Amino acid sequence: MAPIKIHGSPMSTCTQRVLTTLAEKGVTSYELVPVDLMVGEHKQPAFLAKQPFGQIPVLEHGDITLFESRAIARYIVSNFAGQGTPLEGTDAKTKALALTWLEVETNNYNPIVSIIIYQKVFSSYFGQTCDDAVVEEQLKKLEKVLDVYETHLQKHQYLAGAEFTLADLSHLPYTAMMYKAGLSAPYTSRPAVNAWWERISSRESWKKVSGSA
Amino acid sequence: MAPIKIHGSPMSTCTQRVLTTLAEKGVTSYELVPVDLMVGEHKQPAFLAKQPFGQIPVLEHGDITLFESRAIARYIVSNFAGQGTPLEGTDAKTKALALTWLEVETNNYNPIVSIIIYQKVFSSYFGQTCDDAVVEEQLKKLEKVLDVYETHLQKHQYLAGAEFTLADLSHLPYTAMMYKAGLSAPYTSRPAVNAWWERISSRESWKKVSGSA
Repeated sequence: MAPIKIHGSPMSTCTQRVLTTLAEKGVTSYELVPVDLMVGEHKQPAFLAKQPFGQIPVLEHGDITLFESRAIARYIVSNFAGQGTPLEGTDAKTKALALTWLEVETNNYNPIVSIIIYQKVFSSYFGQTCDDAVVEEQLKKLEKVLDVYETHLQKHQYLAGAEFTLADLSHLPYTAMMYKAGLSAPYTSRPAVNAWWERISSRESWKKVSGSA
Repeated sequence: MAPIKIHGSPMSTCTQRVLTTLAEKGVTSYELVPVDLMVGEHKQPAFLAKQPFGQIPVLEHGDITLFESRAIARYIVSNFAGQGTPLEGTDAKTKALALTWLEVETNNYNPIVSIIIYQKVFSSYFGQTCDDAVVEEQLKKLEKVLDVYETHLQKHQYLAGAEFTLADLSHLPYTAMMYKAGLSAPYTSRPAVNAWWERISSRESWKKVSGSA
């Protein structure tokens, strides 16, 4: 098989999404090539030739280069269909729900938590201070989104039904950062969301990836 | 075959993404069930039972219900694999690029143009006035994103290479609104982007969908 290289950082949420996908699919033979964000390596010509927007991660698989963590995750799922967890779902209904809730993660969930985590965690890296009003506004939006998750998860073990899929997996990195940032209340106060989080964050794949971050 | 219902509006960009996908796949047998956004039908219990976030479109296919336009588009591509345009690409490299650039559309392009179009077009529907400073800021971001597109499209006919895929298709609705809103300059000033836009916006599928909007 052609060698797999992941250009990224074990601390980056998007790199973690890819590494967790590899772990779930039982792909252990790959090279993680560290990109040093602190010195701006991702904005240098050598990296921009692989990823013209200057973002991590990038996957190289033989002569194929991909970027965008969810595109890479889908690619891994499709390329290693015969092994590990069937992360796209095994029947038509699960597949449809997995597609839907991965887009919900992308469009309804991620934009909110990424703003919160930027303010609470990353702003200080850039010599900025956390804008509490922005955090407050986004937390209100998050509460509404998680109300929908709560109702949905009262009926389903996982977002796509009875199976753990890419839709669940994709929530792991940022949600773990919310907990670390002391913002677990929106989750723990909702019983079905809380049980779901316990279920997905205790998976071996995630323990491995988050443990090495 | 189980009947297909699309709950949406022919004027909505996300509904247009789905209708264009159906047209490209040669699926003509479906029912478009209009959702009246002006009276807030999408926030009523009957609609929320199908789409708990109160957004259009929704696809019903037999006993399967999906939402999020790109999830629906992927579902249609996979369900009608044997007919119409192979929108996911026909070889491994094209498939990988199609995955990548559909995520670029979702995460790098759509957030910018949707803010611009909200200000220029939709804000007036809600009795608000266009915030020109916001438009200006987003247009600057758009120029940078389109610089990357220009370089990429100088080497490729379409975003995923030699084939028209979901990655191109997904750009149609909002980009057409940018042109209608008098904001075509960022596109027409870039030769490869301009040629790409002429190429994809002249497809029969899009002419049909935009013509009935």
